[in-house]
Formats: sequence, C-alpha cells, structure tokens
Amino acid sequence: MSPAHVLEPTYRRLKRALMEGLWPGGAKLEAMRLAEDFGVSMTPVRDSLNQLVGEGLVDLTPGEGFRVPPLTEQRLRDLLDVNSALLKTANTANWRLPTEDGPVFIGNEYADRLAAAFSLLANGSGNRVLADIVDRISERLHFLRSCEPEVLPEANGIQKQIEAGLHGSRTDRHLAVVRYHRQCQGCVPQLINCLARLRGGGAT
Amino acid sequence: MSPAHVLEPTYRRLKRALMEGLWPGGAKLEAMRLAEDFGVSMTPVRDSLNQLVGEGLVDLTPGEGFRVPPLTEQRLRDLLDVNSALLKTANTANWRLPTEDGPVFIGNEYADRLAAAFSLLANGSGNRVLADIVDRISERLHFLRSCEPEVLPEANGIQKQIEAGLHGSRTDRHLAVVRYHRQCQGCVPQLINCLARLRGGGAT
Repeated sequence: MSPAHVLEPTYRRLKRALMEGLWPGGAKLEAMRLAEDFGVSMTPVRDSLNQLVGEGLVDLTPGEGFRVPPLTEQRLRDLLDVNSALLKTANTANWRLPTEDGPVFIGNEYADRLAAAFSLLANGSGNRVLADIVDRISERLHFLRSCEPEVLPEANGIQKQIEAGLHGSRTDRHLAVVRYHRQCQGCVPQLINCLARLRGGGAT
Repeated sequence: MSPAHVLEPTYRRLKRALMEGLWPGGAKLEAMRLAEDFGVSMTPVRDSLNQLVGEGLVDLTPGEGFRVPPLTEQRLRDLLDVNSALLKTANTANWRLPTEDGPVFIGNEYADRLAAAFSLLANGSGNRVLADIVDRISERLHFLRSCEPEVLPEANGIQKQIEAGLHGSRTDRHLAVVRYHRQCQGCVPQLINCLARLRGGGAT
C-alpha cells in the first residue's frame, strides 16, 4: 500500500483535476504518465485511480484501463433527480444547520459555493450516508456547474436563495432546492453543449 | 494495472466475502494474506480493495490500512432512510418493471431475493444512478439482512409483499417499501445484536 503521506495528496490532486475538467470525457488516464506528471511512483496513482473508480469519478473498462466517464444528457438528468430527492429528504422537521467547520471554498466560486450549500443542507439531516452521496454528486457535477451561470436564466439568484435557505424556514429550503433542479432539468442539452465547448470541443 | 481476467474475479470474490460477513466489523484486511488465500498476486487484491474503499464496503485509514467498516446503529438507520427515500423516488408514474435479465439469485436466499426486488424496483425508474446506489446499499446490508427473518416480526410476509408489488400497482409498491423500512427502523438494536452474535460475538 502507498504510504499515507503520498496517497492522500495524490488522491486529492487527481480528484480535483477531474472535478476541474482537466481531461475531456472518455479521455484515457495512464497511471504511468500521471505518476511522472505528479512526481510520485505508480503505486499511489493506481491506488487513487481505483478508489475513484469505486466513487464513480473514473471508469475502469476491463482490458482497456482507466478513463474519464463521459457526462451524457441522461446521466445528468439522473444525477439531478437523485440530488433533488436526497436534498428534499434531508430537509426534515429535525433539520439543523451544522455548527462545526463548514466545507472549504476553493477554486471556481459558483460551483464550490453551491457544493458547500448542498453539503450543509445534506449534513443538517444528521444522515452521513445521505450527505456523502450528495458530496459525491457535487464532485461529479463540479465542472458542469461552471456552465450554470452562463446557461441558467437565474443561476446566481438561485444560489443566493439556496444559501439564504440555510438560515431560513423549511419551506424556504424546499423552494430553493425545487427551483434549482427545475431550472437545471429545463436546460440539460444547453448545459451539456456548454461543457463540450469548455472542454475545447472534445467529447463531453 | 492487474490484467482484467484476474482483477474481475478477485474483486467479485472479495466483495462477496464482505457481503457474507466472512470478517467481523473492524477486522484488518491484509492484502498480502488475502493474495495468498486467493492464490493471486498482491496487485489485483490491492486494486480491488481500493475500489471497494471508493464504494464504501472497505475502510481505509491513513497509516493503518484496510479494515471492514463496522455497522453501527446510527449507520444502519442512515442506510435505511436513504434506501427508503430512493425507492419511493423510483416509484414514479413512469415506473416500468425492467424486462431484461433480472439480478441473479445466489447465496443466502432472503437477502438475495430482497436485493433483487429492490434492484428491480430501482431500475424500473430508468434512473441508473439511483439504481446503482440502491444496489450498493444492498451489498452493504447483505449480511445484516440474514438476521431479518429472525428479528422482524413479518420479514417473510413483507418480502413477498415487495415482490408482489413489482407486478402490482404504484400504491402496492409504496406500501410494501414503507412497511419494510418501518419494521427495520423499529428493530435496529435487535438487528445489530443479531449481527454481533452471528459474527461470533466479535465487533459488529
């Protein structure tokens, strides 16, 4: 097993690169090449890639190796529906805004703020399984979300409404979650087009 | 990377052993020892363990290595709530019983039949993301479910109701899902006790 002090940063660097859309959907991820780029041995890279396969952020096709999973319209609709269902479930009568240190805001501001708000909403349910799945979906959709301010008619207003909902009533939170997912579902082809454009016209 | 023809069976064998409760919660999983037991090299074992970390079926603690994740009462309640929410979401107006080859029935009959029925219910929504999460939860709870016929007052009747619901109305499916999860949530401490007993009194 890779030593913890090498595995952890390699895993995080690889995950962040995937979240930021460094490679287009379908791109092959060569462990040896990545190890050279990162200045580490093959082992932590392969260990990280395999963990990310389990998390759904990397595809592993038998005999073909690791690839970036393409984001299709159908997959995006599915991810949005699950995210919406879980956030509505999280918003119970017992919901409480978590008081410990919140998620860190780094990189692309809109996508990171949205992920942080959804994470707080999910964690407020006290259900860790639910919160982990919501975080996983945010990681999968991170790069796509950088398209939302351009594509959704009211992306920034909705983001503010979601953040305000964290300090508002149960109804406020519910309406913000519904409004966000309705706008996204209404713009799926445009979002996928924007993603392909941002990735230089390659596969989405 | 391990060759596909070694990785795939190693991964499946390891996953099935975890599902069948071969090791108690908290048990350390030594890649070298497992490789010897399975008669394969370290590489496919480590690749499989890392994938299973990403899937939540194995824990990886930095500096400590791989362990079997213990199932606590809280974690069980969380898994049940997410399962229930997703199965209710799956049961939409557009729900259709999938016609392709259904899930395979192997091993412990009750747990496998329940997993297969939930998988069909989830897949009937057409939402692959949702169906994958429901399958993942079934894998995580497989061994615990072998306690249900002993602990739940009406486990076998409810299981039949869930299977009948697949050919019944939307209301039939809804009532079966609600009844199952209500019974489980009402017996969480007894289920966790039974799990500890089955695993020979070790950690759950």
